[in-house]
Amino acid sequence: MTSLADKKVAIIGLGLLGASLGLALQKSGIRRLGWARKSETRSWCLEHNVIDETAENVTDVLRDADITVLCLPIPAISQFIVEHASEFKTGSIVTDIGSDKGVIVDAGEKALKPYGVYFIGSHPMAGTEKSGCQAAFAELYDNAEIFVTYTPESDPAALDTIEQFWHLLKIARVKRISPEVHDDLVAHTSHISHLLALALTLSVLDCNSQEEEALRYNGCATGFRDTSRIVSSSPVMWREIIENNQSAVVAAARKCEHIYHEIVSSIEEGDFDRFEMLFGRGKFLRDKWMDYKKAQRDQLEQK
Amino acid sequence: MTSLADKKVAIIGLGLLGASLGLALQKSGIRRLGWARKSETRSWCLEHNVIDETAENVTDVLRDADITVLCLPIPAISQFIVEHASEFKTGSIVTDIGSDKGVIVDAGEKALKPYGVYFIGSHPMAGTEKSGCQAAFAELYDNAEIFVTYTPESDPAALDTIEQFWHLLKIARVKRISPEVHDDLVAHTSHISHLLALALTLSVLDCNSQEEEALRYNGCATGFRDTSRIVSSSPVMWREIIENNQSAVVAAARKCEHIYHEIVSSIEEGDFDRFEMLFGRGKFLRDKWMDYKKAQRDQLEQK
Repeated sequence: MTSLADKKVAIIGLGLLGASLGLALQKSGIRRLGWARKSETRSWCLEHNVIDETAENVTDVLRDADITVLCLPIPAISQFIVEHASEFKTGSIVTDIGSDKGVIVDAGEKALKPYGVYFIGSHPMAGTEKSGCQAAFAELYDNAEIFVTYTPESDPAALDTIEQFWHLLKIARVKRISPEVHDDLVAHTSHISHLLALALTLSVLDCNSQEEEALRYNGCATGFRDTSRIVSSSPVMWREIIENNQSAVVAAARKCEHIYHEIVSSIEEGDFDRFEMLFGRGKFLRDKWMDYKKAQRDQLEQK
Repeated sequence: MTSLADKKVAIIGLGLLGASLGLALQKSGIRRLGWARKSETRSWCLEHNVIDETAENVTDVLRDADITVLCLPIPAISQFIVEHASEFKTGSIVTDIGSDKGVIVDAGEKALKPYGVYFIGSHPMAGTEKSGCQAAFAELYDNAEIFVTYTPESDPAALDTIEQFWHLLKIARVKRISPEVHDDLVAHTSHISHLLALALTLSVLDCNSQEEEALRYNGCATGFRDTSRIVSSSPVMWREIIENNQSAVVAAARKCEHIYHEIVSSIEEGDFDRFEMLFGRGKFLRDKWMDYKKAQRDQLEQK
């Protein structure tokens, strides 16, 4: 496939990510079908030029689409594929936006292959703490890094098409990755941060007395605020994310537990030279990463 | 002592906290003596109206001051008190700005009592990631919470005077606290955040290969940036802070390790209802704390 101009894309699920995708594709020339469970959401998205057309019945949308992007919560993605496997257009490609890939890619490939439909997993590193189509905006995907998955089952042409599709947006880059490497990566870069921030919050704010609570409430400042920020996310969403990346999360979290234990032991044993060395190593690594990110931003701005 | 107007305060150490204290006291009417090890720092602070007078020899400053504020790194505070114990003015009061209190208050009381000099520990919750007198500004202490310590050894009049002294600044409030309760508090609200952020940074950025590093560097985003921010602080300073609060830090850190272990175990055992319940509890507590801080800010702005 050399051009996407005459193709139709279906966006299933018109929340923050789905509706922002519709808005970002406005000027691409690609025909945008859209569907959401609630008819009010479909109407709102049609009125606000998030999509070009919709249908009451999702089957009518799926039959018509060359590319279907499932913008649903993680468990709903696999469920939707299994329930609607026979309804996608033969030869079409299905992708998604879920932040776990192993479970979804496995379900997608198995369910769709019998129907001659291709599945390629995607994970755009984009989002805000908000949700719903009314929080959507065209720039959500700007400068995002997008992962697309490949497996021994992946169709090379379908993979190319999904990469081309994401390049219709103003993204930073598309990175091919195996579902296993992806899930290990996000376990480290995102999922265990949430477990640590949660442990901190429970340690500090779950108090034994009102007096202790009053002290802690006043004593916590910007350091605590930043370290604990991600604990204000949705517990249901994080349950779903962690549940669908169980083994990679447990492996990364246990490694981190071991390192934390080593840090605390250096303090308990009074080996403060070792503690300072570990802190120095952490500072060196974080400062290096911040420098890398800054250089990357500068480069993107010069484009 | 009913008024501080005719008193002299000596600021020992003219770094970020000491020089900002000088600037903040400019309009208070209190006479500001100042001393720093480097003569260039003393000259710069005189020229920029950070202090009213100085001397080459620190003894000349100490002999003249009714209140001495030690604005030095934590280990230097205790060292300074011990070395110069006989040089403070009889009947004068010595305080400090260190973020650990047990070790400092103990050293201060023991060393100064034989000379008829009072020690009251202070800990203003103020600072930035910068250092040095040229980073100082008059507003650093604005709206800060200041802890002052009391022990069975504390002189009630000296405690009152130090409270009055801090009220010369535009602070939010002064809170009396025992050194033990203070050190347990900061272990929770500040110190263990640093240990967790350090464990996370080492887990994520200490890589096994260049390929893994490239993936991790791109994969880390705003969540990681915020959770790891405090690891970019000074390793030497944090070694000193932790070293001087060893037992409270170890107790708080082990409790947090236990909670973290429980969170990871809920995932490993596939008990995601329990995981969601823990996350929900964390979100509830953090959101409640954020609401409290917002209400407090709104109230201060109305003043």
